[in-house]
Order: sequence, then C-alpha cells, then structure tokens
Amino acid sequence: MKIYLAGPDVFLPDAIGIGRRKVEICTSYGLIGLYPLDNVVDLAASDVSLTIFKGNEAMMDAADAIIANLTPFRGPSADAGTVYELGYAAGRGKLCLGYSNDPAPYRDRVARICDLTASDGRLVDPEGLTVEDFGWPDNLMMIHALDLHGCPLVTPHEPPTDIWHDLTAFETCVRLAADRAKGKSS
Amino acid sequence: MKIYLAGPDVFLPDAIGIGRRKVEICTSYGLIGLYPLDNVVDLAASDVSLTIFKGNEAMMDAADAIIANLTPFRGPSADAGTVYELGYAAGRGKLCLGYSNDPAPYRDRVARICDLTASDGRLVDPEGLTVEDFGWPDNLMMIHALDLHGCPLVTPHEPPTDIWHDLTAFETCVRLAADRAKGKSS
Repeated sequence: MKIYLAGPDVFLPDAIGIGRRKVEICTSYGLIGLYPLDNVVDLAASDVSLTIFKGNEAMMDAADAIIANLTPFRGPSADAGTVYELGYAAGRGKLCLGYSNDPAPYRDRVARICDLTASDGRLVDPEGLTVEDFGWPDNLMMIHALDLHGCPLVTPHEPPTDIWHDLTAFETCVRLAADRAKGKSS
Repeated sequence: MKIYLAGPDVFLPDAIGIGRRKVEICTSYGLIGLYPLDNVVDLAASDVSLTIFKGNEAMMDAADAIIANLTPFRGPSADAGTVYELGYAAGRGKLCLGYSNDPAPYRDRVARICDLTASDGRLVDPEGLTVEDFGWPDNLMMIHALDLHGCPLVTPHEPPTDIWHDLTAFETCVRLAADRAKGKSS
C-alpha cells in the first residue's frame, strides 16, 4: 500500500528530516510512504508552484491512501493545502486517514483567537458568523470524510510537547492503514 | 449544468437568504445552483453533523461543477470545509471554480496575524514554519487546482465593502461556468 503523506510538515525548518522519519515509520509497517518533498522541483523556475502542484497531484493519484496531518495551522483549522488534498483523495476513492496533535474541540480553538457569543440560538464569532459546535476538533466535512472514507480522526488525549514533531498519532494512522492493507476490520 | 455552491456563506446570519440570491443568479444564467442548506436536516437529531455531511456529499456527487467561496475565514486561508469540498470536487472530475473577495497575497494575509522574518532563505512565521510566497492569495494547491480543473481564481481588484455579501466575483464565476456549459473556450 502506497500512502501519500500530506501535511504542513513541508513548511517545517526540518521538512526533509520529518518526511524521512514518516517514510521510515511506513516502511517499518510494510507500507510505502510518498512524501511531497521527494518530488524533484527546480526552485529557480518561474512556474515552480505549478510544478509542485502537478507533482503532488501525480503522487496522490499513484497512492492508495492518504494520511493527513490536520493539526491546526495558523488558526483554528488545519492547513488549507492539506485539507484540499484530503478532499481530493476522498473524491478519488482513496483510503483516508488523518490525525491532529491538538485534540481541542473546534469551538475552543476559535475561542483562542476571538470572543464567542450566543445570538439567536447560534454560537457566533465577532463577525456574527456561526461557530460549528458539534464537539469535533475541526469542520465536520473533514471529520466525517475520515469516518466514512477511512478511519476516524486520530488525536492524543493531551497535545504532545512538540505538536509539529511528535509522530505518535501519525504512527497510529500508519498502523490502522497497515491493518486495512492486511484486510483486518480495524 | 448543476453547480454546488460551497462556502462559509452557510455560517452567515442570513445564510438562507444569501443562498437564495446565489441560486437566483445561477438561474438567470440558465444554470442550477445547489446550496447545502437546501438539504433537509433534523437539527435536533443526535447525528446531525453526519446527516449534513452525507447531504453535502450527495449534492456534490449530483453536481457537474463547484463554485467555492474562498474568501479568507478566521485566518489567512479559506474555510476548511469549503476547501475540503473543492478538493473532493476536483477528485471527482467536476468543473472547479472559485472566488475570493479578498485579493491580498497569502504572505500579506499571514502578516496581518503575526510577524514574518527571513530565515535561511525562507520567509517564516514566529513558529519557524515557512510562509508560501508565490504571490498567490492562498495555498498553491487550491490556486492551481482551479487553474487545471476549471477556471483561475476570481478576485476583485479591491475588497468590496461587504466581503460576505458582495456577489460580484461570484457572478463572474457563474458566467464562466455558463460559458463552459455552452461549450465556449473562456
């Protein structure tokens, strides 16, 4: 089973190193990890972002599954590029797995950046826009996409000390994928 | 042509009203707009979020195209649920269109919420994570998904006074979709 390794990990200072660790964990479970930065890109080219897109899309098309790092990124929700990729994988019928190293419910994540109030039976932000309040860590579309197209979101009970480098929840996703690859029901 | 109308519009105080306006604009171009809140949902049911997910997914499956409102939402990027849906639509081979009522480049959007610095040739946020700096308004995956699976992101030259209710950019997307439906090359 080939697994596309999606996440804002590519933005870390040690993006290459964490990708290598993720691929090694996949290998230890008999799976093949495909990491976006393994694509060869000429960073001096004028169309570098388009090349990155095409490389990532081809890698997703070649994969059987995705493991998306949905840890909140610059706000209450996951990284937009990663979320796009999770959607794309679901649309293509791939096995979808994901984790967040921050288990906090979405309403609490939003409350970190602004005040929430009740208005006409809705929980709203200062702009008056509804704050989803189903108890899930992020928008319901991603949460239930994982439920129905793969395995439920994996989260730790408490955030690890280093949310960008702790791979415990990631490894749980790999184990779940390996079980699926072996035809187990877990 | 049936068009799924994705966006954080569903979180507005007048979510029903704006959906009605969007559907009417589609109708005026000979297209059928499908708005998530048109699905019937029992808000008192215990599995309401799952019902919403299934309704949205079925609506997307029934659509030929998507128009995603990618105006930044609670941070520098678009609403996560909308981004998921754009990815899903792209994966399913639908015609993909999108707009953002905020035309600002991503680096400027991030600079609104934190200080950016240069580090080892990278533009980074206070956590040391790279800030994409290709000049696009949002993550390259969404930008190029629109380029390659539909029409380039539509943005106004200047943000409208009411970014959540101005439908000028939305109507441009509808016109582009109508042109495609008629087999024009635009």
